[in-house]
Amino acid sequence: MDGTHLPLIGEETHLRADAVRNRARLLEAAARLAAERGAAAITMETVAAEAGVGKGTVSRRFGDRNGLLQALLDHSEQRFQEAFLSGPPPLGPEADPATRLRAFGPALLHHERANLDLYLAAEPAAERRFAVPPRRLRHTHVAMLVRALLPDADAELLAHALLSSVEVVLVDHLVRDHGMPLARVEAGWHDLVDRLLG
Amino acid sequence: MDGTHLPLIGEETHLRADAVRNRARLLEAAARLAAERGAAAITMETVAAEAGVGKGTVSRRFGDRNGLLQALLDHSEQRFQEAFLSGPPPLGPEADPATRLRAFGPALLHHERANLDLYLAAEPAAERRFAVPPRRLRHTHVAMLVRALLPDADAELLAHALLSSVEVVLVDHLVRDHGMPLARVEAGWHDLVDRLLG
Repeated sequence: MDGTHLPLIGEETHLRADAVRNRARLLEAAARLAAERGAAAITMETVAAEAGVGKGTVSRRFGDRNGLLQALLDHSEQRFQEAFLSGPPPLGPEADPATRLRAFGPALLHHERANLDLYLAAEPAAERRFAVPPRRLRHTHVAMLVRALLPDADAELLAHALLSSVEVVLVDHLVRDHGMPLARVEAGWHDLVDRLLG
Repeated sequence: MDGTHLPLIGEETHLRADAVRNRARLLEAAARLAAERGAAAITMETVAAEAGVGKGTVSRRFGDRNGLLQALLDHSEQRFQEAFLSGPPPLGPEADPATRLRAFGPALLHHERANLDLYLAAEPAAERRFAVPPRRLRHTHVAMLVRALLPDADAELLAHALLSSVEVVLVDHLVRDHGMPLARVEAGWHDLVDRLLG
């Protein structure tokens, strides 16, 4: 009895590990497409082609395009969080707080631009906007850096002011409606940080 | 023929002027109620009682409560705009730019708090959020002050950062979800302005 089960258990474990790797590979392919050609370029077909698998494999993992986009946002958000919480300098903990704060704005801008369609589609209602977990985590992080740099400031409020200045909906308005180059928004973050740090 | 019409025209003019006065009186009464007891206290009945007229008069002017609230927001917005564009100091043009900028945040906060329910109910969709006329006018005004005070700064972006720091949805989150006193948000505006002006 045990003998007949062991190979099956082994097979199942093998399949699961394979499924996890497969999923990660598909999400990496989708993230590459989003970064290079924008989220609009993400379809079940383009992700399958980019990952070198059949379209059926993508469908089995994510259901439809919306399922894929949601999974991609979670995945991308997690990598961004890892980068500023525990990644290498200038974002991560080995750099000094001023360097980390200066680097955070452009990193957030690029993360948001790479996932623009996802963020705009997932924009929460007004009463939830500041309570969603990624926003709270960013705020905690920026407030921690501000507290280290400006002990006499109201770090909580300054962190909100900083984050709001590169908020995805505002930046989209500036870029789309006013044709503002993203480099100018990045320079604006550095200017704001430098003026605050005096 | 002319003789029979003249009195009617006179009567009509008289009625119109009366209607305008009536409308203004009802809106002033509603604004007082909102400032003293919050927008939730505004009903057709309370406004009628505050203005010393019958409920039918309020219904004839505004239709229903929603019509009244929309008219009130327009009315209140216009008074706020007059205050910072052409009103007395510290908001208006007779004060120096630094004084006007310092005063603008608390004035905006109080204006938004007095109309909180209206603003939350009227919160535009993401793609329209920064394009609505009152927001644009505030931005033009703050950018003009920043330009006068910090000629080397990116006034357009700094104005967005400043305005976002006292944005109605953020402030509502801070006050409602975190129990932050409004006085602290006001102090945060002054702190932010003072740090930027150096």
